[in-house]
Amino acid sequence: MAKMKAAILVAPGRIVLDDKPIPDVGPLDALVRITTTTICGTDVHILKGEYPVAPGLTIGHEPVGVIEKLGAAVRGYSEGQRVITGAITPSGWSNACLCGTCSQDGAGTRHGWKAMGGWKLGNTIDGCQAEYVLIPDAMANLARVPDGLTDEQVLMCPDIMSTGFGGAESAGIRLGDVVAVFAQGPIGLCATVGAKLCGASLVIGVDRLPDRLRIAGLMGADHVIDSSQVDPVEEIMRLTGGRGVDVAIEALGTQSTFEGCLRVLRPGGTLSSLGVYSTDLTIPLSAFAAGLGDHRIVSTLCPGGKERMRRLMSMIASKRVDLGAMVTHRFKLDDIEAAYALFSEQRDGVLKVAITP
Amino acid sequence: MAKMKAAILVAPGRIVLDDKPIPDVGPLDALVRITTTTICGTDVHILKGEYPVAPGLTIGHEPVGVIEKLGAAVRGYSEGQRVITGAITPSGWSNACLCGTCSQDGAGTRHGWKAMGGWKLGNTIDGCQAEYVLIPDAMANLARVPDGLTDEQVLMCPDIMSTGFGGAESAGIRLGDVVAVFAQGPIGLCATVGAKLCGASLVIGVDRLPDRLRIAGLMGADHVIDSSQVDPVEEIMRLTGGRGVDVAIEALGTQSTFEGCLRVLRPGGTLSSLGVYSTDLTIPLSAFAAGLGDHRIVSTLCPGGKERMRRLMSMIASKRVDLGAMVTHRFKLDDIEAAYALFSEQRDGVLKVAITP
Amino acid sequence: MAKMKAAILVAPGRIVLDDKPIPDVGPLDALVRITTTTICGTDVHILKGEYPVAPGLTIGHEPVGVIEKLGAAVRGYSEGQRVITGAITPSGWSNACLCGTCSQDGAGTRHGWKAMGGWKLGNTIDGCQAEYVLIPDAMANLARVPDGLTDEQVLMCPDIMSTGFGGAESAGIRLGDVVAVFAQGPIGLCATVGAKLCGASLVIGVDRLPDRLRIAGLMGADHVIDSSQVDPVEEIMRLTGGRGVDVAIEALGTQSTFEGCLRVLRPGGTLSSLGVYSTDLTIPLSAFAAGLGDHRIVSTLCPGGKERMRRLMSMIASKRVDLGAMVTHRFKLDDIEAAYALFSEQRDGVLKVAITP
Amino acid sequence: MAKMKAAILVAPGRIVLDDKPIPDVGPLDALVRITTTTICGTDVHILKGEYPVAPGLTIGHEPVGVIEKLGAAVRGYSEGQRVITGAITPSGWSNACLCGTCSQDGAGTRHGWKAMGGWKLGNTIDGCQAEYVLIPDAMANLARVPDGLTDEQVLMCPDIMSTGFGGAESAGIRLGDVVAVFAQGPIGLCATVGAKLCGASLVIGVDRLPDRLRIAGLMGADHVIDSSQVDPVEEIMRLTGGRGVDVAIEALGTQSTFEGCLRVLRPGGTLSSLGVYSTDLTIPLSAFAAGLGDHRIVSTLCPGGKERMRRLMSMIASKRVDLGAMVTHRFKLDDIEAAYALFSEQRDGVLKVAITP
Repeated sequence: MAKMKAAILVAPGRIVLDDKPIPDVGPLDALVRITTTTICGTDVHILKGEYPVAPGLTIGHEPVGVIEKLGAAVRGYSEGQRVITGAITPSGWSNACLCGTCSQDGAGTRHGWKAMGGWKLGNTIDGCQAEYVLIPDAMANLARVPDGLTDEQVLMCPDIMSTGFGGAESAGIRLGDVVAVFAQGPIGLCATVGAKLCGASLVIGVDRLPDRLRIAGLMGADHVIDSSQVDPVEEIMRLTGGRGVDVAIEALGTQSTFEGCLRVLRPGGTLSSLGVYSTDLTIPLSAFAAGLGDHRIVSTLCPGGKERMRRLMSMIASKRVDLGAMVTHRFKLDDIEAAYALFSEQRDGVLKVAITP
Repeated sequence: MAKMKAAILVAPGRIVLDDKPIPDVGPLDALVRITTTTICGTDVHILKGEYPVAPGLTIGHEPVGVIEKLGAAVRGYSEGQRVITGAITPSGWSNACLCGTCSQDGAGTRHGWKAMGGWKLGNTIDGCQAEYVLIPDAMANLARVPDGLTDEQVLMCPDIMSTGFGGAESAGIRLGDVVAVFAQGPIGLCATVGAKLCGASLVIGVDRLPDRLRIAGLMGADHVIDSSQVDPVEEIMRLTGGRGVDVAIEALGTQSTFEGCLRVLRPGGTLSSLGVYSTDLTIPLSAFAAGLGDHRIVSTLCPGGKERMRRLMSMIASKRVDLGAMVTHRFKLDDIEAAYALFSEQRDGVLKVAITP
Repeated sequence: MAKMKAAILVAPGRIVLDDKPIPDVGPLDALVRITTTTICGTDVHILKGEYPVAPGLTIGHEPVGVIEKLGAAVRGYSEGQRVITGAITPSGWSNACLCGTCSQDGAGTRHGWKAMGGWKLGNTIDGCQAEYVLIPDAMANLARVPDGLTDEQVLMCPDIMSTGFGGAESAGIRLGDVVAVFAQGPIGLCATVGAKLCGASLVIGVDRLPDRLRIAGLMGADHVIDSSQVDPVEEIMRLTGGRGVDVAIEALGTQSTFEGCLRVLRPGGTLSSLGVYSTDLTIPLSAFAAGLGDHRIVSTLCPGGKERMRRLMSMIASKRVDLGAMVTHRFKLDDIEAAYALFSEQRDGVLKVAITP
Repeated sequence: MAKMKAAILVAPGRIVLDDKPIPDVGPLDALVRITTTTICGTDVHILKGEYPVAPGLTIGHEPVGVIEKLGAAVRGYSEGQRVITGAITPSGWSNACLCGTCSQDGAGTRHGWKAMGGWKLGNTIDGCQAEYVLIPDAMANLARVPDGLTDEQVLMCPDIMSTGFGGAESAGIRLGDVVAVFAQGPIGLCATVGAKLCGASLVIGVDRLPDRLRIAGLMGADHVIDSSQVDPVEEIMRLTGGRGVDVAIEALGTQSTFEGCLRVLRPGGTLSSLGVYSTDLTIPLSAFAAGLGDHRIVSTLCPGGKERMRRLMSMIASKRVDLGAMVTHRFKLDDIEAAYALFSEQRDGVLKVAITP
């Protein structure tokens, strides 16, 4: 049986590169040879044991590659085509998918409903930090890369671009809205870009790291606030003349950023939550106007599926957006353990790493 | 100066009927002679000092009456017409109103944004538990009562019908949705009716009082759950085959009901919050799927304005809905102190009282 | 090779019952043994040659039956289960599906976009007026019939209930809307019911046949207008006090009904078009306010997929709606030619026929 | 009685500058001293007698100026403030306004519904091509100009920017949509800009004038098509690989552009209509997929009101958009007749003129 290299979680705290069999291809699957992938903040949660997955699992959910082999029932593709898939790989045929909630697709559960059911790669099945990855429900997920786009240009599409933009879209941003984005890590930066693309007139970026605030400014934030120096709530209320913001996007997953978002919201405004939380959240009574503020709180899991990927790549192809600057470091798959070390310690101003087998 | 009787908050714990001058009519105002009004749960909060208003204020925000006098700039009405207004009396011309958030209209604040700014009657200006009430921005608020409808038939429109229905509407209920309504007091009953009118296939009512569950059944709940006997979360998950509900409506204002709503929500589902809370709220991590469940939490303050009232009355006129059974007791204005006693102690199965000067 | 009986279009004007091989089951398919089906107005268009399909095709797109055999890749079902599928059988995995336009799914076309691509049964592949039908993309389409519901109770779900309700949903009906439905054939009756379920305060049904107007009244129309006796536009403007309707639903497919809808629309109102037209349409300048009326015209092709079917059946199971009265005649499959004759000539007050092999 | 100069329609074909009394200020009005205004394509329709208004009316609906005097009931402003108002001046308090259809506000009609009722300036009351203009319902309409913005920078806000952007917004453009804009006059150019601001990945501009196509390219169109040289429908289908566009915006008001839009629409796509038509329109059967294409046709009248103006100006202030290049010519009010001649004949590459008293 042919072998491949894969980044495997052996135990909390340990991801190692090891050999694994190249998987068999079922009738609805596609085997994709990875040409570039990356590491996500969620992978670091897995590494640290904060988010549990089964020992032995291959990690990674951001694949760029080439179709190596197609399942017997897969139509519409041919081997050798360059493709990406989303981090979320909906089946298309579940009740969740057919009800407009593709990310919540969960094939194995009764009636097809289970939170995060749509996130399979590197979560419930082997992921793509490997030489090969098996993509389930290939016809719903393989998105061809337009000619002329490099691997690195589309590397953010599967997860952070889809998630960050999704936060802006779920908020229902309207032309002329003022938007605050709490935290300017990779997801937050994509939310900043997404808010502008959705028509915000003013985007305010908040973070504690000067490097990230600098990049936020380069990527389109109109104002940046260093929350290690000033109270971002006070500063945002000052910037908006006491009015507050129409939309606040949470992009870190902490009580502090969640609460900051709620406190700067105008009556009738929307908090769009993207972070992965690790504790219960508190909604302060006053920030919620005792329930009478016509507020909305929406959470968004990364939208996936091939149509989503097609749309995101089309925005890169037409130069609406360029996230190339987010790839700050490059590693060979053989050195992925070093990449995890750098990324998890956020050394050297790292934003995203490119991993190539 | 002519005098009238009015129910006045003299201090926390004390609402008394006393004389007050009949107010002068400004250019945009209308003076309405009250023919029927009622007491709201919020008024009881005011009485108990849980929601602070200025001592000396006339309480009440659910007016049915007759136009006594119109302001000099008011067009389109004539004296003697039967009218209601919403509990919320938007100006129509504020930025909040023009941005689609009429309930959050707040004329006095900078840029027109302030939570609950639209609730003026019996909150920031004199209310309608009196012989006369002055309606601000009359042209946006006076809604003529269709011929053939009695005062009691339209008495629920200004607040609880608009609020309860609003909870169903804000949730974006779709044909075939399963909806749980936590608490079956007046607002919750209206939410139950509203959920059905919006197309829910199944409405599950939850309360601790057998009387209210009985009425919930009469008003259209398909299932009722006595939360003093069984765990409503378990019961709802059982009823839905483990799937959870598409929409859960919170109609009481407590952590327990808020949390119950969140726990029965399917991934991608919506919690519609109507209650007035008195403490911070906690979002349990698991119930919120760590932020990855594509959940929405929306809060709704009673929609007001004459068009809203026109629509609600049209549904009564066409017999789509009959809330007459909710008026369980009747009092003269002279006896309003007794009415407050009965209503605040929830004696004798009281749902709503009708007060007539 | 095993044979079955099937209603086959041999040439325009001729549908005959003849033998055909029972089809082979591909990996994504399911073979369903039909227990009840019906004839649609569209089938009559096919019969008359007004809508062209390939000679030799089995007609019919409204299946109720039992799973006879499942494709090798189909999971989540077992043979012997009672199921329906929609008239439209989306794949789930096309770009159209993943973009929220399942009815426009068209697997064979480039990029997956082609009008009506989602309608396959009895259009581009063999249909269900037969002893057996092959359902493509079975996992997206097989919807289990809840215990306790008869075949006839769910017989309207695949097409006319989904279409009629879809017309009400696409129009974005809000609580308190006034809705006119032009034509009260099977689709129009379902639109009448759907408009009420979506919260319309007043539904006005228009038709030329007294029988249909009588049924419209029974099924919930508040007013009915006999357009053979009075001008429906004038009558609707009179009924609405000159205001016009919020939503007008076209349910026949003619210039006259389309234009009537547009003429009774208030500024800002929505025309929801369900009919299958056979000629170009004219938008009169005045009815369209020269393009300045903030009008919307939306057309809706029958929504399909198993989740849609699940929702529709849930509304029948909870007794929100009962379309049983629409089955006016019953035939054996052996007599389907007689059924076509009766139905196409609209004899004996026929609304829908039930066909049982 | 004090006099002012005003551009008055004396008869079809003749607009002259003449003296008129400065109007009295009613309780809800504001008198604004005009500092800059412009001429709209609609004004040319009025001039030519194609759109009838009362002889003697002052023309113009795009005011930039300074508050000269406030009505007795107007609060929240002071004299001397720089303001604009929209071309549409909603009251805020009509049923249409309170139902979310401010442009269709028509105070004088029964129930407040009448197409275009919201367009008053230079239509049903005196307009702003004059030294002074009386603004009705001032509190809903006066929008303060942010410090630092010149008259010319905000001159497009009242009409063409609001209309053009409105066409993109009404279409519900989503991130990654492909949008075609038929006609690149002032409105079409604003629709092109608006489509990009709403997140379109690709905007295709169509016109017959090379000058306008050149400007379309400068203002963000990704492709431009000269419809005098090639068939725009074929070209767009080619550019989209046969898929068609998600949204097509009509910005001229002719059968040809309307039909072109419909023919390039993908199934499930939206035609957003902005033009003012002068004849009945034809919907070709095939372009409309016989009613089965899930198409939407939406028409949009310029959104108005002070909140809309505030939002548009905020986008200029934050440099999201710069329409300054659209002012190609400048005239004194005294020379407005020459300005009309230039503009109506579309000489010298004119896009918009600035008129200053």
